[in-house]
Order: sequence, then structure tokens, then C-alpha cells
Amino acid sequence: MPVTALAGGVGAGKFLRGVARVIDPADLTVVVNTGDDMVLHGLHLSPDLDSVTYWLADVADRERGWGRRGETFRAMDELRRIGGQSWFALGDTDLATHLARTELLWQGIPLSAVTEQITRALQVSCRVIPMTDDRVETRIDAVDEAGGPLDLHFQEYWVARGARDEVKGVRYEGADRAVPAPGVIEAVTQADAVLICPSNPVASIAPILAVPAIADALRERDGGVSGVSPIVGGAPLGGMADRLMPSAGLEVTALGAASAYRGLCSGFVIDERDAALSSRIESDLRMRVAVTDTVMTDDAAAERVARTALELAAG
Amino acid sequence: MPVTALAGGVGAGKFLRGVARVIDPADLTVVVNTGDDMVLHGLHLSPDLDSVTYWLADVADRERGWGRRGETFRAMDELRRIGGQSWFALGDTDLATHLARTELLWQGIPLSAVTEQITRALQVSCRVIPMTDDRVETRIDAVDEAGGPLDLHFQEYWVARGARDEVKGVRYEGADRAVPAPGVIEAVTQADAVLICPSNPVASIAPILAVPAIADALRERDGGVSGVSPIVGGAPLGGMADRLMPSAGLEVTALGAASAYRGLCSGFVIDERDAALSSRIESDLRMRVAVTDTVMTDDAAAERVARTALELAAG
Repeated sequence: MPVTALAGGVGAGKFLRGVARVIDPADLTVVVNTGDDMVLHGLHLSPDLDSVTYWLADVADRERGWGRRGETFRAMDELRRIGGQSWFALGDTDLATHLARTELLWQGIPLSAVTEQITRALQVSCRVIPMTDDRVETRIDAVDEAGGPLDLHFQEYWVARGARDEVKGVRYEGADRAVPAPGVIEAVTQADAVLICPSNPVASIAPILAVPAIADALRERDGGVSGVSPIVGGAPLGGMADRLMPSAGLEVTALGAASAYRGLCSGFVIDERDAALSSRIESDLRMRVAVTDTVMTDDAAAERVARTALELAAG
Repeated sequence: MPVTALAGGVGAGKFLRGVARVIDPADLTVVVNTGDDMVLHGLHLSPDLDSVTYWLADVADRERGWGRRGETFRAMDELRRIGGQSWFALGDTDLATHLARTELLWQGIPLSAVTEQITRALQVSCRVIPMTDDRVETRIDAVDEAGGPLDLHFQEYWVARGARDEVKGVRYEGADRAVPAPGVIEAVTQADAVLICPSNPVASIAPILAVPAIADALRERDGGVSGVSPIVGGAPLGGMADRLMPSAGLEVTALGAASAYRGLCSGFVIDERDAALSSRIESDLRMRVAVTDTVMTDDAAAERVARTALELAAG
């Protein structure tokens, strides 16, 4: 049964390992956010594509929560020593991905084909597609401590400045003109189920939905779309979703997360601790709700969440 | 006493360590070939600038002959594993230099200012300047085994294809329009002595001399220019100079190397094994010749060669 997932970074990666245990990975297509891609040191970085790829390839560092297992940071340590920009940590083996990707992009190969090569090399057995081959950039309008205006790349806001600035708004620059990468629309329309991973709704999923053709394809489906809440008990499962949800008018609850997908999701999976929100999600947002333990401490836990989301989409 | 050296890569680096033992390093300016610079994986590589910098900073790997001491190759090993281009080996700490350089170039900072930052960070106490901030590319016209024509970047010819192709000619693309980097002309005209390092005359020194203003400045000097032969006993001291000299009409001898600098050098240092060539270099090329052991097995040996070259330039 063909299944398509919309994905951000680490939270999505954990969840997708579960999905790949429930269904044949060959039946899984993952459409990944590229709004936080950036060029740093001349290298094209695709943080969410890499997180998803590393998790699915089982080379992710589960303890640290980002990057690759058994990673070393010799290049970064030296870069810091010689005074280079070192706010975005790049591990030595992680660098290989960026070198390979950038080389292929310079050859004129589109990001989607580059991603296919890299995921195949890392023996990922499901299909991973960037949402678009076009440039989309998630920009944060913020104010600094002194009240001065800031217009930041998402990664500058998130990593370089530690999400400390007050956010006024989030823009997905270029998304309105972006064309979905080859295979994305087919994957969304033809899948038996579409899953929205437990990723940051504003930072990770909204950029995908900001590509008009993708949101349209999702809206035209006759159900079978399940989301999984990235918020448990009023706080993000991981990351800093709480910093961006309010700026998008979303309360930092499972209800707030679900409301980001109003009219798109037919079902929504929330955590046991948020069971009390079920009726409001069902009545206000017209989504069926499934309640389970959504904390994915290991692959078995991720499998349980994935099974719940798939059953909800099917049912 | 201000001294300026024209330099290629490793041979120059070894020799310059010797120069910096004879004179105050603060008095030494090194003008470095950038004809073999290239963009690989999106990173701006300056192989000769790095070789000279690493040798002067005393972080070069003396045994391996290239790159940094105590280097690791985690990124390259992974790049090779995932099928990326890995013909040009980049060590993990070496990568830091390329990341820093590329980031600064993307910010619009010229290569000469970038080089100043990197050499300062690595505590190099002499001045290292690229020959130009403009793009110059050493291209090799060759024929492959099957007789087909090849137009190769120098590094493709030299490293990727192991200098195996028959060379028809060497071009320094862009050199005729290149402007010397800030400080280069002053360094050449105002130095008490100009030294031409024992580098490949065709691959390393010729690109520098192909920048018209640099060759003119050198020609306008009233002597005080010493070269050091990179050829000992009919073979290169290191590298593969023998592959390119014939294509430039130079025989692979100390005489051939000296003839590359006809009208530019007032003196030339050759090895004891080549002492028999002294009279021809003196009569045919009108250079004074000094004979010494030019094999630089350590800094003390390099110091001896440097002292000889400096005395020859002064005398």
C-alpha cells in the first residue's frame, strides 16, 4: 500500500523509522521540507533532508538528537580555531554529504535527483524527495533585544541565535512560485494514506504546504490524511516548536498543532496526556482523533505511533 | 632587508622555511601561484597557497609530502563510500581552510584579504599573497591514450589523471587580463632580493609570470633575482616537473629550468650533481650560478639553500 509522508527533520526521522517497520519501505515516499536549506561555506546544506536520510539509513545519532552516530568534528574544531564561522556544526562524515550534494548541484543536477543518489548510496530503501527543486527560504521577521528589526534565515534564527528573538512573522520566500519536485504530486494524490510527521508545523510542514500545488493536491484528496502531534502536554516533543507556533497564531498544544492542518487532515494522533483535547479537535477541526503514547524512545515506540497513524488514515 | 619570493607549492614551502631562518620572516613576502585553484564540491581550493601556508605554519606533513600533519580523512572516506568525487584528497582539518576561504569569498572578500586572514590565524609571520585576485586557470591541452584531444584543468591532468596524458601545450587562461593582487608589484620592485622558489617552472612559476604586470615588474628590476633549480640530476626534486617542461620547450635539466627564467634571473642555484652545467647557464643565459646541495631534507638543509640564493641575489 503506497504511503506518503510530509516531513521535517529529526522528529520526522524517528517517526518514519516506525512507518518503515509497519509497511514495506519500498511503498513509502517521504516529501521533505527544504525551506531551511542554506548555503554555508559555499556548501548546499539541506538539514531536513539529511536528518530524514540519516534516520532512515540508521546512521543518526539518537542520543545527541542530530547528526550522525560516531561522528567526529575535526574540520569544525579547526574552523573554529582559525576564526571561521562555526555556529552551524558540521561533522566530518556529515560534511561528505554536503560535499557530494554541492558537487552534483554545481553539475546542474536538480536537488531531487541528487537526493535520490545520496539516499541510494546510504541504502535508504524508501523514496525521499525534496518538496521542490526550486529555492524556498523560510525567513523569520523578528526583533532583537534592543527592539531592532531582524530579517533572518530560519537557521540564523534557530541555530545561530538560539531562537532568542521575539518573532513577528514567518515567510516562505519563493514558495508561491515553487514547482513541486518530480513525483511529489503523484505521491500525494495516489497514496492510500498521507501522513504528516510530528514535525514543527510552522518551521517544517508549513513550508511544504506553502507550495501551492502541494496544498492543492492534499486538499483534493478524499481523506486518508493523518497528522501526528509534535506537541505533548503543552510542550514540543523535541526542538523549539513553542517559539514559532504563537507567531503563526497557533497555541502550543496538540489542538494548536492540529489546527495548523485544518481542512487537510482527516485524522490526528495525539498523546495520552492530551486525551482531554480529543473532543475539541474532533468538533472544532472535524478530524478523527487517535490517542496513544507518542513519545518515540525507540523504534518499537515509533512503530506503535506509525501504526496508529496509518490505521487512522485507513479507517 | 625585504625579500620577495615567487612560489608554487610543496617545493616552495620547504625552501621558504629556510628563507625564514635566514631573514626576519616579517621581511618576507611570498607571491603564490593561483593558476591551479579550482572549485570542487563548491569549495574554493587554492592548493599552492595552502601548501606554502601549511609549510610556513609548520603544520605540513613532511613525510607524505602534501597536506597537514596528523591529518584524518573521515570526510573523504565517507565521500568515497557514498560515491562522491574523491580524486582530490581533502583532509578533515584541511577542509576547515577551504570552508573558511569559501565562506569569506562568498561574502565578497578578495582572495588576497582572505589569505591574509587565514595565514594570520595559522600564525604565519611572513606575508603570503596570491599572485592575483582575478581568476587564472592553468589548462592543459593533451591527448588521451586513444589520441583524442583533452582540455583539462591542471588538477584534472595532474591529480585526477596522474599526469598520464601526452601534453601538447599549457595555457594560463585569464592571465593576460589579470591584475596583480594588492602589494604584489611593490613587493617585486621594492625587495632587495627576489627569489624564484624551486617549483615547477611550467606549472607553478609560469602562471605568475603570465600576469603581464608581474613579469614587467621583474624585468624592470636591476638584478637581485635568484632562482633555485627544481631539477637535480635530470629529474625533479619532487613532483612531476618532467611531464610539463618538455611541452614548454624546456629540457629536464637545471639548464632547462634556468632557461625558463632567461632575462629575469640574475642568478641561479643548482645542485652539486649538476655543477657541469654551470658554464652553459652562465654563458648561454647570462646568470651567475651558485652550486650547493639543494636537496632539502630538513629545515637546516633548506636554510643552506636559502642562504646561497640570498647571497647570490645580493652579490
